[in-house]
Amino acid sequence: MFAVVMAGGAGTRFWPASSERLPKQFLKVVGEQSLLAQTLDRIRPLVPDERVFIVVNRSHIEPTSDTVKGRAANILAEPIGRNTAACIGLAALHIARVSPDDPMVVLPADHFIRDDEGFRAGVSAAVEIAKSGALVTIGVSPDRPETGFGYIETGDIAGEALGEDFFRVVKFVEKPPLEKALEYVAGGRHLWNSGIFVFTAKTILREIELLAPTLHEGLAEIDRAIGAPDYDEVLSAVYPRLEAISIDYAVMEKTTAPVHALKSDFGWSDVGSWEAVYHLHADKCDAEGNVLLGTGITADSRGNLLYSTMDRPVAFVGVEGLTVVDTADGLLVARLDRSQDVKHVPSLLKARGR
Amino acid sequence: MFAVVMAGGAGTRFWPASSERLPKQFLKVVGEQSLLAQTLDRIRPLVPDERVFIVVNRSHIEPTSDTVKGRAANILAEPIGRNTAACIGLAALHIARVSPDDPMVVLPADHFIRDDEGFRAGVSAAVEIAKSGALVTIGVSPDRPETGFGYIETGDIAGEALGEDFFRVVKFVEKPPLEKALEYVAGGRHLWNSGIFVFTAKTILREIELLAPTLHEGLAEIDRAIGAPDYDEVLSAVYPRLEAISIDYAVMEKTTAPVHALKSDFGWSDVGSWEAVYHLHADKCDAEGNVLLGTGITADSRGNLLYSTMDRPVAFVGVEGLTVVDTADGLLVARLDRSQDVKHVPSLLKARGR
Repeated sequence: MFAVVMAGGAGTRFWPASSERLPKQFLKVVGEQSLLAQTLDRIRPLVPDERVFIVVNRSHIEPTSDTVKGRAANILAEPIGRNTAACIGLAALHIARVSPDDPMVVLPADHFIRDDEGFRAGVSAAVEIAKSGALVTIGVSPDRPETGFGYIETGDIAGEALGEDFFRVVKFVEKPPLEKALEYVAGGRHLWNSGIFVFTAKTILREIELLAPTLHEGLAEIDRAIGAPDYDEVLSAVYPRLEAISIDYAVMEKTTAPVHALKSDFGWSDVGSWEAVYHLHADKCDAEGNVLLGTGITADSRGNLLYSTMDRPVAFVGVEGLTVVDTADGLLVARLDRSQDVKHVPSLLKARGR
Repeated sequence: MFAVVMAGGAGTRFWPASSERLPKQFLKVVGEQSLLAQTLDRIRPLVPDERVFIVVNRSHIEPTSDTVKGRAANILAEPIGRNTAACIGLAALHIARVSPDDPMVVLPADHFIRDDEGFRAGVSAAVEIAKSGALVTIGVSPDRPETGFGYIETGDIAGEALGEDFFRVVKFVEKPPLEKALEYVAGGRHLWNSGIFVFTAKTILREIELLAPTLHEGLAEIDRAIGAPDYDEVLSAVYPRLEAISIDYAVMEKTTAPVHALKSDFGWSDVGSWEAVYHLHADKCDAEGNVLLGTGITADSRGNLLYSTMDRPVAFVGVEGLTVVDTADGLLVARLDRSQDVKHVPSLLKARGR
């Protein structure tokens, strides 16, 4: 099997820890290593290094190489981010050259998974199904009415032969309003869409050809240049013109091929905001619910998150429910439950000429 | 006349902008210059430089010299802070050598005054009264029920000859509870105790001798060494043993000499906390009531104070009523109305070994 690690995220939601220079996947926001390093370690027992493809923006080759640390993984550089369909298509071209019928697991580089063993068990089961040409999506049993995720509506069990954790996919659902999310959690038929997929290179390229033919035309142009001396030139010319569309929207929601959802439960998070970082550190809370990642002292303060990369103390006095992020690039002081809005900060700063 | 500028404050309430190394009087928390520099400029039209005495802790001679910038003002170094009675006594010894019967105005180095002309008019009037041997305290008409200040209870007008702004002092009142403060403001007979006094050196030394004889004994020992080669040695030996007591408590509250309060109104503040700094910048508020002293951007945030000496942006997202102080020594995130509690932070940090 192959692994495609999608590490092309731009990372505006983690300002000022993340930046264009160093987006979230390269940060240690949860755990002792960067999310990318954790993702690579997680997949390593299943996939030999030379079968791992990391797709990153051209400007992030350096931190990616630093993370790979001389191992054999393949780094595919995107001249510009064009969403997941192009990213997966590009990786599939390269994999198809080697082995078009072997399953590839596609996974975001900037998610967190607590139970690595559970994850690998799920992926291994999905890989078996994908060999037959099916598209498999890994869904996560929701434990709260999250409105920041997409959902997968499941139908019956997909078939005795596949095992009781595989369900027929009825449809993919965009980020729902709270009311709908509450229904989904109560109904028990919806899973969070983790963005982790398994299929063969041949299958996904065929689906792209059928359902997103203009994207496929562009990919075919790039395909013809693979191994040729003008590959970089062709990629630079063609890639920016590819349609920027998600694999969900381009293929998964439209395909007539069999799509199965694996229902899993391995402590997944998309680490979508500072609030998510706070909740992922529930085990590191002090008695007042403060999570202090860095040198912090608190006086009569509750439920705050500190993330600091600076060598200086941070004092909280009489404050509640804040996220404070202290780095050389900037300082964020936000309400934890408003941390989704942090994504607007970089553009506000740009408008101010910073 | 002479001026005694008391610049011995230790400055824990302005952490992390202030520190043992650089207390509040050396900071630009309000206005374009440090509070000490503003105090010196304010008194300069009334008092020739060589008649200005600045009393500072020995460890702050350097920033004081930097502030004085080569002018003729006299710097008196305290080996250790021993409250205002010792500080004023020490300055009075030096002034008495030159001219015991000339009034000296005693003023804290770390207060803010908006109306410098009004201040000088008040001091000039007080100086005339003090020549007769009276003790004059400058009181400020209260505009709110402040519980962080001492008050002066006034009686009748002190006498036709003194002018209608001079009142007999009934008593000095310690920081009152809110209920009392409300009464004081409503009653109209109470003034804030600004800590600014005018008397002659002879008068105050006589009062210290009468009312605080052990303090006076210590001062007399120091007095004998003035001009002698072992002055520093004697000061280092004697000063730390002096009673640490305020001039209010040692003299003003107990004296049987005439004490007059000048009722004034020149936009005085003791700049007692970050909350005071916020209110002193009412003219610099944005439309949402944020005061940004430094590079800050706000999104849906109201009534916050930023004080930053760092060259990096600070973003506020969805927060209200906070004070954020960003310096090389530390970062403070506090509720503005809890900024009195900031004074505990340095000792909390010390306990943590920072």
